[in-house]
Amino acid sequence: MEQELIERFREIVGAKHAIIDQALIAPYLLEERGLFHGKTPLLLRPSSPQEISLIMQLASQTCTSIVPQGGNTGLVGGQQPDERGESVLLSMERLNKVRTINLEGNFVVVEAGVILQDLQKKVAESDRFFPLSLASEGSCQIGGNLSSNAGGTAVLAYGTMRDLCLGLEVVLPDGRILDDLRFVKKDNSGYDLKNLFIGAEGTLGIITAAVLKLFPKPKEKAVAYVGLRSPSKALEFLSLAQAHGGGMLTGFEFMSKLSLQLSLSYNMCENSLLEHEHEWYVLINISSLHGDGEALSVLSTILEEAINGAIIDDAVIAQSLKQQDFFWQLRESISSAQKLAGGSIKHDIAIPLASIPNFIAEAALIVEDIAPGARVVCFGHMGDGNLHYNVTQPVGVDTTVFLQLWSKMNHCIHSLVMHYKGAFSAEHGIGQLKREELRSFKSSVALDIMQGIKKTFDPLGIMNPGKVL
Amino acid sequence: MEQELIERFREIVGAKHAIIDQALIAPYLLEERGLFHGKTPLLLRPSSPQEISLIMQLASQTCTSIVPQGGNTGLVGGQQPDERGESVLLSMERLNKVRTINLEGNFVVVEAGVILQDLQKKVAESDRFFPLSLASEGSCQIGGNLSSNAGGTAVLAYGTMRDLCLGLEVVLPDGRILDDLRFVKKDNSGYDLKNLFIGAEGTLGIITAAVLKLFPKPKEKAVAYVGLRSPSKALEFLSLAQAHGGGMLTGFEFMSKLSLQLSLSYNMCENSLLEHEHEWYVLINISSLHGDGEALSVLSTILEEAINGAIIDDAVIAQSLKQQDFFWQLRESISSAQKLAGGSIKHDIAIPLASIPNFIAEAALIVEDIAPGARVVCFGHMGDGNLHYNVTQPVGVDTTVFLQLWSKMNHCIHSLVMHYKGAFSAEHGIGQLKREELRSFKSSVALDIMQGIKKTFDPLGIMNPGKVL
Repeated sequence: MEQELIERFREIVGAKHAIIDQALIAPYLLEERGLFHGKTPLLLRPSSPQEISLIMQLASQTCTSIVPQGGNTGLVGGQQPDERGESVLLSMERLNKVRTINLEGNFVVVEAGVILQDLQKKVAESDRFFPLSLASEGSCQIGGNLSSNAGGTAVLAYGTMRDLCLGLEVVLPDGRILDDLRFVKKDNSGYDLKNLFIGAEGTLGIITAAVLKLFPKPKEKAVAYVGLRSPSKALEFLSLAQAHGGGMLTGFEFMSKLSLQLSLSYNMCENSLLEHEHEWYVLINISSLHGDGEALSVLSTILEEAINGAIIDDAVIAQSLKQQDFFWQLRESISSAQKLAGGSIKHDIAIPLASIPNFIAEAALIVEDIAPGARVVCFGHMGDGNLHYNVTQPVGVDTTVFLQLWSKMNHCIHSLVMHYKGAFSAEHGIGQLKREELRSFKSSVALDIMQGIKKTFDPLGIMNPGKVL
Repeated sequence: MEQELIERFREIVGAKHAIIDQALIAPYLLEERGLFHGKTPLLLRPSSPQEISLIMQLASQTCTSIVPQGGNTGLVGGQQPDERGESVLLSMERLNKVRTINLEGNFVVVEAGVILQDLQKKVAESDRFFPLSLASEGSCQIGGNLSSNAGGTAVLAYGTMRDLCLGLEVVLPDGRILDDLRFVKKDNSGYDLKNLFIGAEGTLGIITAAVLKLFPKPKEKAVAYVGLRSPSKALEFLSLAQAHGGGMLTGFEFMSKLSLQLSLSYNMCENSLLEHEHEWYVLINISSLHGDGEALSVLSTILEEAINGAIIDDAVIAQSLKQQDFFWQLRESISSAQKLAGGSIKHDIAIPLASIPNFIAEAALIVEDIAPGARVVCFGHMGDGNLHYNVTQPVGVDTTVFLQLWSKMNHCIHSLVMHYKGAFSAEHGIGQLKREELRSFKSSVALDIMQGIKKTFDPLGIMNPGKVL
């Protein structure tokens, strides 16, 4: 990149926030799973939509590609520049203001660089609840959550990030600012632009702020681990829990024996949670807006009926807030725990609920066929049909050799997913990792429309190139 | 239209379903409010997406414009051809199959021409609930509900049609069929096409089928009318009801004294509902998944606390299922009742909740200024901030003269709405009626993006021309 161009970008954000020192840039290029090794000549850290607007104007004039980055927690490389090293990396971290909290209207206007956990805490101080919750909440940012339409554990009751957003402010690839920060839930005035930017992974524009819904803060919760025999039983249990719990059912996480075992040992917990081991487990969470024991009472009713109906085999209810947190920690740390067991080929999929049992049975055969001895670590948000179907290397096998099976494994598992009309990327997005899958599994009609949309928004192709399409 | 072209369309749908007899076409051109007087040389009634695909292929080849129509209940003329009489009218009524009901997955695959009430009944037979509910449910169709992103009285708890839809099947303007009938709630694989078609009022393609979410059927409800002093008190009451009721709060309809009076007399009910008259009323509905009196108990708690806190002044709980229905009927027939009071200038708006009291006070001054003596009939889905702010003519004034104030009144009221960052079309859409408003109140950036999207999907401009943009 020419010095003169770097100079012009520097004028926009100030010398301190236009970084060319590769040692300072390095952390921004490090990515969780080590799958991508992007390069950039320049890191910009703008502080306002206006600065980003100027950056995009200059980028358009000079045909310079821009890669926006939030908390850098994405799992598909959407936030990473490619290896050619020609794209400018644009960190959103300084757009970190909570602009407004509106208690009567139950919404918040928040900038893209605000960290999810900071927002959760901030609104909790006002006795409100922002439900989005995921393992990376301590570092992921709202803009990234929106650009990837983040999911997580609260989708069952509150929906994905898409459902939680009322309006957006976006800087377009040509630098114009779209102010669509609506404060109302219902707005049928023209095409739905908001939902185009949500989930577009920064390829259509840069989300700079959003209006997000707030909810009444639950006053209490009740949490249990349940042991059961099969995915079918887990589905029966889900139906029962939904019928009794309705909107109070705020968590229903499913995991295989191995998933829980790995997490228990990662958390240095020597005891199993239940007296015996079970093939499958469910972490169930009931929340209540009242503080009168309703959550525990509803959970107890559900468990009792499930035990009596031979739907579940055993259950343990958390006896303290601390134990509730520990139960959730066991769920949240499965991914980290799995790392210690060696290389892992990941699938972030959604399956229609009724087809989950067949899918799990058939996928196991595929895995054994492709990688004999590989260990399936299957867990996820069963209430949403969203499974993290991860395949850990067989014991003693070379990790690099095993990981060479990635594409083949993905392709076969995703083919099965599509056979059941599911999704081959349920919550992590496409990024760089799943572009081939998108080409394989989306219809040519859908791909063609997407290309048309991309061209309409970004005719020069400067907006996060090489991602999604 | 040339005879030869009519012949070619006729070959696609069969002679019986290509109608040129204007007497038979007439009912399709009659529209609820009598605001539009469209003409067409040809009405087609295809029976499948494949036939629609052939129709659109022919339309593309011959540059013939097509206007899709559902139950013809839309209020902004989106389903009506223009007066030039060159567009072919395409009725969706024969695509009326419920293709699949999936109980375990809680979804239904339904064709666009299915009548909403038929769907509600059909899924109720399987102990499931499809929540969308609006006054025209006996004749409106699912395709129209999707194309207008319908709202209604259940949005508070279940969301708009957009929130209720998992996937779509769409015939594009060039005749290609987009099969995006996903069965899963979470799918982050590329741009969100579904939400572009929803609410696009048939200007980007023709929705032919959809996957819709189902819910557990509530086992009981409790319904009350509440009298209160002001919009501010209604907001306080809403907060209280939400804090206690959470997801059980399934209706919160707000109405002015005059709205209820008109409806009572329309329903030939001589008694007022409460001992005294009140300036404002709220119809509150609590639903429960259990059949153990929970709904009534929660409603009673809410009312008691509201009375004790001087938030509301009086309340009456419906004492039977029949009375519950009557309470709702009073709400649903306000629009019909209003017709008897003369001409009415309509506004379908959304206001951020906290701003509703100020809006109502300021809008009243605007009305009095433009049309002295005009009577405001204000009612709506307060939980969503959605008001039907209708202005009925002064007593004894000529209706035609009064209705000439339509544009001026709209523009002034909508300007106030936009000042509060609300929506000038909350649930009815743009159609023909609000195109000028769209041009006035959307930013040039938003309009420009919308034009670009329209061009991408429909370069020939044959898809429901003259609507939205």
